[in-house]
Amino acid sequence: MPTHTALRPATTPSVPLPSSADDPHAVLSSAVNAPLVGGGEIGYAALDYAASAPVLRRVWDEVAAYAPHYGSVHRGAGHLSRLSTELFERARATVAAFLDCRPDDRLLFTRSTTDSLNLLAAALPAGTRVFVFESEHHAALLPWARHGHRVDCLPTPRDPEQAVREVGSALAAAPEGPRLLCVTGASNVTGELWPVRELAAVAHRHGARIVLDAAQLVPHRPVSVADWDVDWLAFSGHKLYAPFGSGVLAGRADWLDAAAPYLAGGGATRVVAADPAEGVRVTWAEDEARHEAGSPNVIGAVAIAAACRALTEGAGYGALEARERELLSALRAGLAALPAVRELALFGPESERVAVVSFTVRGWESEALARTLSDRYGIGVRSGMFCAQPLVRRLLDADGPADDCGGALQAVRVSFGAGTPREHIDRLLAALAELTR
Amino acid sequence: MPTHTALRPATTPSVPLPSSADDPHAVLSSAVNAPLVGGGEIGYAALDYAASAPVLRRVWDEVAAYAPHYGSVHRGAGHLSRLSTELFERARATVAAFLDCRPDDRLLFTRSTTDSLNLLAAALPAGTRVFVFESEHHAALLPWARHGHRVDCLPTPRDPEQAVREVGSALAAAPEGPRLLCVTGASNVTGELWPVRELAAVAHRHGARIVLDAAQLVPHRPVSVADWDVDWLAFSGHKLYAPFGSGVLAGRADWLDAAAPYLAGGGATRVVAADPAEGVRVTWAEDEARHEAGSPNVIGAVAIAAACRALTEGAGYGALEARERELLSALRAGLAALPAVRELALFGPESERVAVVSFTVRGWESEALARTLSDRYGIGVRSGMFCAQPLVRRLLDADGPADDCGGALQAVRVSFGAGTPREHIDRLLAALAELTR
Repeated sequence: MPTHTALRPATTPSVPLPSSADDPHAVLSSAVNAPLVGGGEIGYAALDYAASAPVLRRVWDEVAAYAPHYGSVHRGAGHLSRLSTELFERARATVAAFLDCRPDDRLLFTRSTTDSLNLLAAALPAGTRVFVFESEHHAALLPWARHGHRVDCLPTPRDPEQAVREVGSALAAAPEGPRLLCVTGASNVTGELWPVRELAAVAHRHGARIVLDAAQLVPHRPVSVADWDVDWLAFSGHKLYAPFGSGVLAGRADWLDAAAPYLAGGGATRVVAADPAEGVRVTWAEDEARHEAGSPNVIGAVAIAAACRALTEGAGYGALEARERELLSALRAGLAALPAVRELALFGPESERVAVVSFTVRGWESEALARTLSDRYGIGVRSGMFCAQPLVRRLLDADGPADDCGGALQAVRVSFGAGTPREHIDRLLAALAELTR
Repeated sequence: MPTHTALRPATTPSVPLPSSADDPHAVLSSAVNAPLVGGGEIGYAALDYAASAPVLRRVWDEVAAYAPHYGSVHRGAGHLSRLSTELFERARATVAAFLDCRPDDRLLFTRSTTDSLNLLAAALPAGTRVFVFESEHHAALLPWARHGHRVDCLPTPRDPEQAVREVGSALAAAPEGPRLLCVTGASNVTGELWPVRELAAVAHRHGARIVLDAAQLVPHRPVSVADWDVDWLAFSGHKLYAPFGSGVLAGRADWLDAAAPYLAGGGATRVVAADPAEGVRVTWAEDEARHEAGSPNVIGAVAIAAACRALTEGAGYGALEARERELLSALRAGLAALPAVRELALFGPESERVAVVSFTVRGWESEALARTLSDRYGIGVRSGMFCAQPLVRRLLDADGPADDCGGALQAVRVSFGAGTPREHIDRLLAALAELTR
């Protein structure tokens, strides 16, 4: 069987895209222009990575090399099926290493962080109490009650230390039964880092477990399931430069293995019998397959594994992080110099954060501002409440009804990462200066 | 905003792949070789389309053209977000037209047929009785009980007419409450067509609804939700030459709109509030977004839409179907001429079928045969029970325990479609003749 690297690419570049051989952090969107309302076009400044990051050139190259060899996973005896199964399981091992999982952790391919957290919600023991800060993303707030679990909503903390104290107090007041803390690694609104190690420690001290929503963290910082001692971790491929319909849930096997399969169907079964007299009887699979019914999304898994390799090879996260810090400093200093701009923060201006910044601009409705940045400057940002309505409402001291799909949109978010040039930040700051003059 | 066709491709072919301009049915795998155990290699004969079809060249070209322009769907104000949202919703319209949906049907992007049927199972009114033939795929047998619905298992019919009579009798005996018939359009084991129109008519006559598992049908035949009067239809991208983690559930809006969201998370919400005093409160979206929480898999949707266009343009299905009929006749005549081969059939040798054939070979364990076909002839087929254990067991008159992930694998399946040359069929027949001599 040929190795993965020996796969013959389906395609080679036709336009002068950045070479992934030189730069593992090059992205496809860097060759794209956006039209301007005044006529002409300009290189598109993608500054909405926190919603969906562009495709890493390296990820694309691996998907392109694999695509002609695509075959059914776990299901066929042919050469390409065996190759696909090998690549799929190798991708699982690559991502587990990337997350620094414990040897006996399960690593499941899902469709997204939302899907991963819904899977975990469906797998919790009956009667689990779930503790979650009101400041979390909707995907972290909502799945638990959907599956019948009681949710204890914790107030937005003023600083990381208060977050740890609040979790300790809440767990001390509810010492019985299975309990889970769900917390983000980095806020999808303010980019601020949460004290994951400390939260894991306090959860475990009280006999509870913790799941880390790492959707906004893994694109910017190395993570360690084992060192941080988190029970589960969830993230999305589409925020990690690999938008091919896949995500990940990794962590403790016991509750996952004891739970009913997430989806019922082929692949998740060992033995199925059916007849009119006895009805349908099934014995479910007991490993990863239990929660991966249906044909696995092997291209999605290959893409995530390629992103994990690209982000960790050579200087790896160190280089990416240093570059993002430099751009983030420039961005925040520039925003601070604009009197009309107010940056949103949970823990204050000095707290550690990833390359995600939200703000309001006096005199501008956020949606109109975002639209203007796109139409006149070719800059793509996001406006709204970022699927974290309670947090944005609190940060804005607003309490009226809000609607993520239109209606009163209330902040602007700028986010970036691999492949972002300084010029995009400078262009944004110049545009904001012009629009608020 | 540029039109989709104006997107600049990220890549162009580097190897002499079939030109999609000339042949909308060309597939990427046709340029792939497989190694032979005796040394050397041979063009890979992909004959496991029923598990996962190769990527259509046209699908690849559209994905490659879109990839640099990938952006967040429904979430951003930037040029690429607006473009992505437009492409995603245009893909929805393209697929709805491909399926000939009614104007007020919902069309949801899921991850697969398995996911689509699980979504529908989660959306059925409480207490729905589900009627399903024991001969169905596991994904059609298993989701209903998982969501608390009673399942009535119907015996494998001897012919299509008996299938219709059995459904009529079963529904007449259970005239109360919400009822659903789940049936395949084409067997994933024998390829035989089921009488979908007639089953829809008998279901409706008795006040029941019907969902069509079209996973094996849409790659081979045009379908019509409206004309056939099926309430829902499910299929997978990866069997329709578009393996990018996406599938489809299309049909009646009422039960879907009345159900709790399939996944809980961002995108599916309208208003979310959360605080320690009141807990988490949510108002869910009421359109397609209700069941599509998380960032949509826009590449997956674009890929499925591209496949729908490629299969219907020009001579479209007519040309594909004619070619498949010719190859299928040659294959079945060749198999019939081999004394050791026994073809499996539900309704007898003359029944209408798509390009899926299963058989046993006297003197050969099926897994060993499939492996030998791959190792010595570069032919990829599937062995096992094809996620339809009750049916395969019945067709083989076997009743011992079976295991799709290993263990006693009991039949070989050959399936093909777009891009399959006559040489692959001839090579398979020659190999079987040699191996059974």
